[in-house]
Amino acid sequence: MSIAKLHNLYVDYLHQNAFSGAPNNLYEPMRYIMELGGKRIRPILCMTGAEACGSEAEHAIEVAHAMEVFHNFSLVHDDIMDRADQRRGLPTVHKKWNEPTAILAGDNLLVKAYESILAFQGEGKDAILRLFSRTAAQVCEGQQDDMDFAERNEVSEAEYLQMIQNKTAVLLGCSLASGALVANAEDKIVQGLYDFAIAIGMSFQMMDDYLDAFGDASKTGKVSGGDIMEGKKTWLYIKSCEINAETPSWFAQYEHEQRVIAVKSQWINMGLDQLILQKAREYNQEGLRILSALAEQGVKTDGLTEILDFLSGRSH
Amino acid sequence: MSIAKLHNLYVDYLHQNAFSGAPNNLYEPMRYIMELGGKRIRPILCMTGAEACGSEAEHAIEVAHAMEVFHNFSLVHDDIMDRADQRRGLPTVHKKWNEPTAILAGDNLLVKAYESILAFQGEGKDAILRLFSRTAAQVCEGQQDDMDFAERNEVSEAEYLQMIQNKTAVLLGCSLASGALVANAEDKIVQGLYDFAIAIGMSFQMMDDYLDAFGDASKTGKVSGGDIMEGKKTWLYIKSCEINAETPSWFAQYEHEQRVIAVKSQWINMGLDQLILQKAREYNQEGLRILSALAEQGVKTDGLTEILDFLSGRSH
Repeated sequence: MSIAKLHNLYVDYLHQNAFSGAPNNLYEPMRYIMELGGKRIRPILCMTGAEACGSEAEHAIEVAHAMEVFHNFSLVHDDIMDRADQRRGLPTVHKKWNEPTAILAGDNLLVKAYESILAFQGEGKDAILRLFSRTAAQVCEGQQDDMDFAERNEVSEAEYLQMIQNKTAVLLGCSLASGALVANAEDKIVQGLYDFAIAIGMSFQMMDDYLDAFGDASKTGKVSGGDIMEGKKTWLYIKSCEINAETPSWFAQYEHEQRVIAVKSQWINMGLDQLILQKAREYNQEGLRILSALAEQGVKTDGLTEILDFLSGRSH
Repeated sequence: MSIAKLHNLYVDYLHQNAFSGAPNNLYEPMRYIMELGGKRIRPILCMTGAEACGSEAEHAIEVAHAMEVFHNFSLVHDDIMDRADQRRGLPTVHKKWNEPTAILAGDNLLVKAYESILAFQGEGKDAILRLFSRTAAQVCEGQQDDMDFAERNEVSEAEYLQMIQNKTAVLLGCSLASGALVANAEDKIVQGLYDFAIAIGMSFQMMDDYLDAFGDASKTGKVSGGDIMEGKKTWLYIKSCEINAETPSWFAQYEHEQRVIAVKSQWINMGLDQLILQKAREYNQEGLRILSALAEQGVKTDGLTEILDFLSGRSH
């Protein structure tokens, strides 16, 4: 199935399986966050993984749903930690309700993610549960690292890449690999698909950093230079420090839009805009290499190629 | 095994399986809360359930651990919601570290509870995971109800009992029943043990309410009348409103120790101290009835009787 069809399949499932229960103050915020929208890339990856290994998208639907529910759990809790007021132009759960309710709604989403995997009937269930649990712990570790890094003066490139991988890429890996496990794929195929999703996840994250600094705000819909204004330790910041020890002083010297203008011009002079695009391309190429190896092993790679194009072709 | 032996068995396991991993800012608070102590009643219940159904305590150890880890997850998150500064005389996790770390450490404890069940190798695993997930959702529901009730003027006795059951008793039921599932016990035995633990959990909770209002502070180690001072909607408060509509005005008229003295003397005049003890006894008797039915079905009830005595014989 195409990405568009898988998207519709999942959204229909989501509407037919909206969380219900009492008290309403617990279940309404859970429905609210699930309905905020988004690309639904994780369930799409999961169903694509199942199809790539000879199963049907529908067979993977509960596991696919678990990945999206887990993602939404992490959004609700991260928004509390990051003191974010808005998500997709609407109030975050802790703003619309309150922090205790947001903590509980997140907790219950995490439980419901496990329940959705438990609803899957198939041999691969135990392996999926183990991979999912390992992934969930890594996501927590990545978020704690991210908070720790904000307090530190120096963060190495390797530490940053590990943090980003845990915080965002491993759930993509888990989603795709879980689909393969639904289809009872062999271990080396499951691992290959996992590595592929990690690679495109890292590429996506590099593009995210690139677009935040150098993207066209009219296309991205985000304030250009938001990370620079916040002084976030992104890959660009870390690389800039490596190349020029003056980097922190550029940040200290200016504020707001002035800082964005000053830092961007330095970074363009240093060639960092090209360097990060190069880094993103390298991850993409790694993904392509893994993909052709998988194709030789009998994996149907059409859907995976479509996802790669979908994620890397973006200007937003 | 006796309660004391099971306690030692579990605490040894806990020390040998202390959570480890990076970053330390995530794993240290997890170890901290697990090491704060306590009766370890949930793992003891789980291992007793396994023994009562013909298995060995050691066989249930991972599942028993999961119950204690889940309990500690709920403590960490509840303490944030309740703005509690201390637990067992030491700072709560969000006080010793901070709220974001406490949210994440709790999240990771919930994941680790699932991982501990996944480490169990046995037929009953899937049923344990399902019961555990249902229980975890109920605990969230109970906590949200508790917060909702604080904002409401009227709460019925039935609503209160349901909330208390979800918030505290179902995890005891899950712990004991999971032990029976480890031993591959029949469904009706599992259900009987679940109901038994619910009954003693409710009895324990009634005694908790009783002791808070009428207990000897020198024995309980808690401030006498803490619930009254806070104006908490306990069973005593709800029952008092049922019997005398003036109840809220007694609370409004006085504050602090004065309120405790005034309310307690009204409640003793109304016979509420005896009524709540009667209620606790009724739950205990229900537990005993279930126990003798289980004994007739071949369940070894010695350990369960010891737990019943241990929990109901307390003055603290």
